[in-house]
Amino acid sequence: MCEQRTRLGALVSGGGSNLQAVLDAIAAGTIHGDVVLVISDRPHAYALERARAAGIATAVLTPDAYPSREAYSQAIADCLQQASVDLVLYAGFMRIVTREAIAPFRGRMMNIHPALIPSFCGPGFYGRRVHEAALHYGVKVSGCTVHFVEEDVDGGPIIVQRTVPVLEDDTPETLAARILEQEHQAYVEAVRLFCAGRLRVEGRLVRILPERPVGV
Amino acid sequence: MCEQRTRLGALVSGGGSNLQAVLDAIAAGTIHGDVVLVISDRPHAYALERARAAGIATAVLTPDAYPSREAYSQAIADCLQQASVDLVLYAGFMRIVTREAIAPFRGRMMNIHPALIPSFCGPGFYGRRVHEAALHYGVKVSGCTVHFVEEDVDGGPIIVQRTVPVLEDDTPETLAARILEQEHQAYVEAVRLFCAGRLRVEGRLVRILPERPVGV
Repeated sequence: MCEQRTRLGALVSGGGSNLQAVLDAIAAGTIHGDVVLVISDRPHAYALERARAAGIATAVLTPDAYPSREAYSQAIADCLQQASVDLVLYAGFMRIVTREAIAPFRGRMMNIHPALIPSFCGPGFYGRRVHEAALHYGVKVSGCTVHFVEEDVDGGPIIVQRTVPVLEDDTPETLAARILEQEHQAYVEAVRLFCAGRLRVEGRLVRILPERPVGV
Repeated sequence: MCEQRTRLGALVSGGGSNLQAVLDAIAAGTIHGDVVLVISDRPHAYALERARAAGIATAVLTPDAYPSREAYSQAIADCLQQASVDLVLYAGFMRIVTREAIAPFRGRMMNIHPALIPSFCGPGFYGRRVHEAALHYGVKVSGCTVHFVEEDVDGGPIIVQRTVPVLEDDTPETLAARILEQEHQAYVEAVRLFCAGRLRVEGRLVRILPERPVGV
């Protein structure tokens, strides 16, 4: 059986714990792929250290070095394409990119959002604000969503969702921590399915194809 | 220990399987309350037969007998108040009532919605349409929400939410059936907590108070 491994690129801004979860799953053999490039908008993002520790190439692209968001997005796309990346992972990347970066990777660029889309998502819902909104609304269940990236923020086809209970004494921090544990599992699952060729996008829907028999 | 049992009223339009779940939980001793009145807008709703079989008083109030939605809502409120109802349950009731019925029972009137509010809720989202919308959007998780009724449709404080997976080959019917099983459990749980005096509404939030020690 000849199996091609998927080349992964990651976009990071912070600690990169979701990137680490993917790296761990690769090391464990769960994900049949390799992270070949990690791009950060911040030179001191801890995720870059994780990448270097794993022997992965890194690039720092700071937005203020570019005349526009479009030019910045184009630079990211160029960088990813030069590395022949098959699948791009938003892993705590705090920039919204334009179609220059999205179009070349349609159906091949994933993001994770710390809520059950379509609840508490879209422009303005990021980081702590997502959890504040959920607690303020009074939901009893929240979770996370891995989806393909489209121009519409948080609006792309949904790949995996996982849920967590909201507890009586939750703060945005405790809720975020509970969801983050599920994010790691959800992201690994989504990447695993992609690398196994088991995701098929049909319009807004992501079909999960059955496992292929070994040896076929 | 002297314990007062809660007097429940239910508003129904159809089969009343959620009403039946509550009746079963009362019979099993899970819910410390009694359904004392079932009101239907349709004379042939099967839920009325369930009520009669359980020896419960019924009333049929048809909207076309009233000059306005306000007058109809007032008639419902009068009927419930004459029966000294403590808690009103929407149990598949397909009418939207006005503040004449809602205001006297604020914090004492529950509805169940077959989605994870704030997703797929509000005006126009009822019955099959809720599940069609969820499947069309492509969510991987759905569920149900028990909430207190406010004038804002599906907008009142959330008491209980339960989740179900959305499966690859789901139709609106199969998804509805999977959620309905959870609705029965969610509704029983919400009513149980109310009857045990364990729900406290604080603005938009419903606090679930700890169980009181036996004998106190």
